[in-house]
Amino acid sequence: MRTGIATVCLSGTLKEKMQACAIAGFDGIEIFEQDLVTSPLSPEDVRKMAADLGLGLDLYQPFRDFDSVSEEILQENLRRADAKFRLMSRLGMDTILVCTNVGTATIDDDDLRAEQLGRLAELAGDHGVKVAYEALAWGKYVNDYEHAHRLVEAVDHPNLGTCLDSFHILSRDWDTAPIEAIKPEKIFFVQVADAPKLSMDVLSWSRHYRVFPGEGQFELAKFMGHVARAGYSGPVSLEIFNDVFRQSDVARTAVDAMRSLIWLEEQSAKWLDANAASLTAGGAAGAASGDSLANAAGRRRYPMELATLPKVAEPAGFNFAEVKTDEPAQLETLLGQLGFEFDGRHRTKDVQLWSMGQARVIINEQAPSHSEPAIAALGFDVDSPVIASARAQQLKAPVVPRKVQADEEVFQGIAAPDSTEIFLCQGSPDGTAAWTHEFGEGLEHPSAGTQAVIDHVNLAQPWQHFDEAVLFYTSALALEPQPFAEVPSPSGLVRSQVMVTSDRAVRLVLNLAPVLQQEPGQQGNGARKSYQEHIAFAVDDLVAAARAAQGRGLEFLQIPANYYEDLDARFALEPAFLATLKELNLLYDRDANGEFLHFYTATVGSVFFEMVERRGNYDGYGAPNAPVRHAVQYDAVQYDSLHAHHVHR
Amino acid sequence: MRTGIATVCLSGTLKEKMQACAIAGFDGIEIFEQDLVTSPLSPEDVRKMAADLGLGLDLYQPFRDFDSVSEEILQENLRRADAKFRLMSRLGMDTILVCTNVGTATIDDDDLRAEQLGRLAELAGDHGVKVAYEALAWGKYVNDYEHAHRLVEAVDHPNLGTCLDSFHILSRDWDTAPIEAIKPEKIFFVQVADAPKLSMDVLSWSRHYRVFPGEGQFELAKFMGHVARAGYSGPVSLEIFNDVFRQSDVARTAVDAMRSLIWLEEQSAKWLDANAASLTAGGAAGAASGDSLANAAGRRRYPMELATLPKVAEPAGFNFAEVKTDEPAQLETLLGQLGFEFDGRHRTKDVQLWSMGQARVIINEQAPSHSEPAIAALGFDVDSPVIASARAQQLKAPVVPRKVQADEEVFQGIAAPDSTEIFLCQGSPDGTAAWTHEFGEGLEHPSAGTQAVIDHVNLAQPWQHFDEAVLFYTSALALEPQPFAEVPSPSGLVRSQVMVTSDRAVRLVLNLAPVLQQEPGQQGNGARKSYQEHIAFAVDDLVAAARAAQGRGLEFLQIPANYYEDLDARFALEPAFLATLKELNLLYDRDANGEFLHFYTATVGSVFFEMVERRGNYDGYGAPNAPVRHAVQYDAVQYDSLHAHHVHR
Repeated sequence: MRTGIATVCLSGTLKEKMQACAIAGFDGIEIFEQDLVTSPLSPEDVRKMAADLGLGLDLYQPFRDFDSVSEEILQENLRRADAKFRLMSRLGMDTILVCTNVGTATIDDDDLRAEQLGRLAELAGDHGVKVAYEALAWGKYVNDYEHAHRLVEAVDHPNLGTCLDSFHILSRDWDTAPIEAIKPEKIFFVQVADAPKLSMDVLSWSRHYRVFPGEGQFELAKFMGHVARAGYSGPVSLEIFNDVFRQSDVARTAVDAMRSLIWLEEQSAKWLDANAASLTAGGAAGAASGDSLANAAGRRRYPMELATLPKVAEPAGFNFAEVKTDEPAQLETLLGQLGFEFDGRHRTKDVQLWSMGQARVIINEQAPSHSEPAIAALGFDVDSPVIASARAQQLKAPVVPRKVQADEEVFQGIAAPDSTEIFLCQGSPDGTAAWTHEFGEGLEHPSAGTQAVIDHVNLAQPWQHFDEAVLFYTSALALEPQPFAEVPSPSGLVRSQVMVTSDRAVRLVLNLAPVLQQEPGQQGNGARKSYQEHIAFAVDDLVAAARAAQGRGLEFLQIPANYYEDLDARFALEPAFLATLKELNLLYDRDANGEFLHFYTATVGSVFFEMVERRGNYDGYGAPNAPVRHAVQYDAVQYDSLHAHHVHR
Repeated sequence: MRTGIATVCLSGTLKEKMQACAIAGFDGIEIFEQDLVTSPLSPEDVRKMAADLGLGLDLYQPFRDFDSVSEEILQENLRRADAKFRLMSRLGMDTILVCTNVGTATIDDDDLRAEQLGRLAELAGDHGVKVAYEALAWGKYVNDYEHAHRLVEAVDHPNLGTCLDSFHILSRDWDTAPIEAIKPEKIFFVQVADAPKLSMDVLSWSRHYRVFPGEGQFELAKFMGHVARAGYSGPVSLEIFNDVFRQSDVARTAVDAMRSLIWLEEQSAKWLDANAASLTAGGAAGAASGDSLANAAGRRRYPMELATLPKVAEPAGFNFAEVKTDEPAQLETLLGQLGFEFDGRHRTKDVQLWSMGQARVIINEQAPSHSEPAIAALGFDVDSPVIASARAQQLKAPVVPRKVQADEEVFQGIAAPDSTEIFLCQGSPDGTAAWTHEFGEGLEHPSAGTQAVIDHVNLAQPWQHFDEAVLFYTSALALEPQPFAEVPSPSGLVRSQVMVTSDRAVRLVLNLAPVLQQEPGQQGNGARKSYQEHIAFAVDDLVAAARAAQGRGLEFLQIPANYYEDLDARFALEPAFLATLKELNLLYDRDANGEFLHFYTATVGSVFFEMVERRGNYDGYGAPNAPVRHAVQYDAVQYDSLHAHHVHR
């Protein structure tokens, strides 16, 4: 598949954008007109730079408001087109995007439109230019790709073809199957964009909220499957208008973009495999053009070659979680109070292992001076760490080097967008981990004490990498994003995105935390941030675990009395049970599937712990209780900072 | 008017919110249930704190999903209500908000609803509680205030009344006139919220994008006028769900909120004056209840007392703009090259005056060491500085102290939300300024050289004070917000809000600039910000002014050649004219009303200058050229930072 991206997706100057696209591995780019107009590079400079970078200049865009106009305006538009065609010749470009008229259209007449598009095609032919005509979702008279293509067919000129854009098609819920009926030589260009399903006007949705494939909710693999079946083999190019991407580091965004196309390519191939039987007569274009072959797997082959990736199944569970700090004392106390056992130090590294049943926590003391505890790494159980790592690397995940001695397990590590290190570990049927023997003999067997597993891990994400993180875990680890939620906190709404495996053995929660802005010269609540992250452990009997922890002196997060009154008003709980919850600072939730009990510890550095019990088939995270946690933690931070303030005085 | 605010509008803990509301001057608050549930304060603590702060506890909210349910769920809901009524008694509160059912309603039957609401009113009566029933815009069966009120009337119980919320009414475009027909004793509560006109699902719109009155586009004065005419005299309370306000400093937001109610009060009184003639029979409630009086101005008086503010007309023009720096050399050069004359130094302060015609720029050297030039103050011509200043202070604008000697003009200064100092100056019919004689004799007469005025000033706003700034300039300076625009720049979209006087003598542009996020450890484009601000001067003959400036060695912002090609493609300009534009780095725009020529200088510190010529009735700012400016300035900053980088090495 030939990969492309429109320069409008990225921040920076045209030069910065082109360099970033080349480094990220794109085959070609679309030149967004404004990026050229605002650039000090001449068209010849751009042409040479693209050649030097090995980037194709695949599409010049957009040319707006051409058709459905009076003859006077048409003359003006043809003059304008002529100027752009001459410019394209200097750029060495041969395809221009012409979108359906939004602003100046006054005459709704398909015959007139065909006549006007025909004159444009003639002019384009004189310049050796191909016009790719695209139906905008909010086009005044033409807003549907089938309508646009009927016009292309009516004109029947070699220099006029169709441009298919997934956003304009899927945002309007147009059926994508008829794409297969379009002759491949009449599809001049294909643009792909994903988007979250939002209920708003389609123009604002398109201009601000598009995301890269895999970061939204459109059925893009199906769209691409129809495109492949039509016999198209040209560029598949990203055109993403996104407020955040336009503000983010250009190099990072280009890599995120490339990852999305690599993943889309695989998903499209999968869709084709899964839907081979439903091949219709209209979709026989590939066969008709003589390219039809059955490959080893029985998949039909289409002119568009779809590269695949090393396959991975979703992870079987968390192997470990790692917290990094050079000041581990508080953390050790907390884990001990929770019921974790200290299993020893690593034989060569400054690293401790703590475990409770199959829940393993590593304290990595190889941290810079005065590093407060922070979640640094997560281990996931996979079938084959080597294959999973190869897949992640093909998806452009940065490799994390980790020193190993002879006889030690070689961890395959990659960096997540928020810099958390993700280690791909050899899973085992009984949930044990072979590497633990590096900490002492016999540790590979789970301890006989309290049984526990890591239930979920909650990571705070920087705002500019939130969507990127969703795609990363989807594509590299085969986690499935759930509908996102928003949780109120004293410092603003926290956007929360759950990523899970189908069996819920892995639950990862990505949180986008608001940052309270500090006012210049103020000492109010503006100074505080809430970038706390946590690891949650599941046990069978939370009340017993909490009592034991209480006995060991654990400092629970203190839940307000008002909470228990409200809980009683909502659920009419049995008085003794309510009293137990209140006594132990336990939180409670219930839904149609089951019940959820949980408690939180105090925070050390940026880390705290949660202990949970799931009853029945409860599948949530106690979302109604999250505002309580946020408020209490906020108060605690305020208390600490006031306290620190007094000490300093 | 009794002022109120819901705690959900603000960031922080319940205690922080209550303190901020009291300091901002609110009469009462609505307790948002979650704020109480998450608080360590007991209901008795809250009651005492409110009494100590002098805050009324006017409404407990929300109680959701009560009506239109099966008898089994109703029993459950009555039990839940009973718990809340008991809680309210501990809080010393007597009014609860019950909103129409969204989640659990299954039976659409007004008789049943009335019966169920009647049972709720009975129970409420037993506890001395008043139930204010509110139609949510997205209520399942009841989403219209008139429908909700028909149910209230059907129940006819002293403990059941209506709550009117401007958002739920105006977002659905319900007619507000029928409010006048509601008996005042049956309106238990009034909530006000403004919002920008957005085309999106009403729930998301409501939960994220509400703003304080005067910051959006709803006709709130009219809504309030009908409420006053109905004879209502209870609390008017803000309920604003806004993602930004929830993240912003609580004390600042509370003041912004209070300002919005003070302004709304004045606007409502104005609406009543302007619509006195249209008083209908239904609106005679005020008269019927015996409170009807004619005041001196002939305005009818209603039970709701609406305080007014000292009146100001919109400013007649810019009096001056002030740039602050202790390193003025580059600025002096730039102003000289533009054609400004140095008029001398202030007789007692370290301040220079430069002028060109009626455009006056002050260079204030009373700045901390190594302060790069930044726009620090703006002077506006008003009829009466003392009255305008009194008005601004009643609107809670902070006063800016400025030292004066005997015989010097006393400037009335207030601080805008972005800390720009706004000075209210005595205007003069000929555009001169009396204070200039403090810089030298005879300067009060305009110079005989090039005629110029300040055309507009463009200020960068911090994101968390953007809406606040709109209200500030609307309420304190009587500027009118225009529809906002978004301009692409290499570092993201720039949101641009124009504020003007009706005669366009004052044009102020508020820009919300994106901040490029720096990646940890990266040296890419992430480090740059674009917080440049500028002052634009209008002249009669821009080409002549540009040539003269060129002759004086001015460094123009260099416009790419590609721009002129595109300009020609768009406008088919006369070749000699196009050549002149290109030679002088002038930008050009044209619309149905006229033409616009302009150029920019290089940036010094965070300030640059623009010179413009308006032909015909062109009313814009060259918006199509803004991306060019942003890109060239971005490149210049990049060049500077690379250069600085090399120097440091």
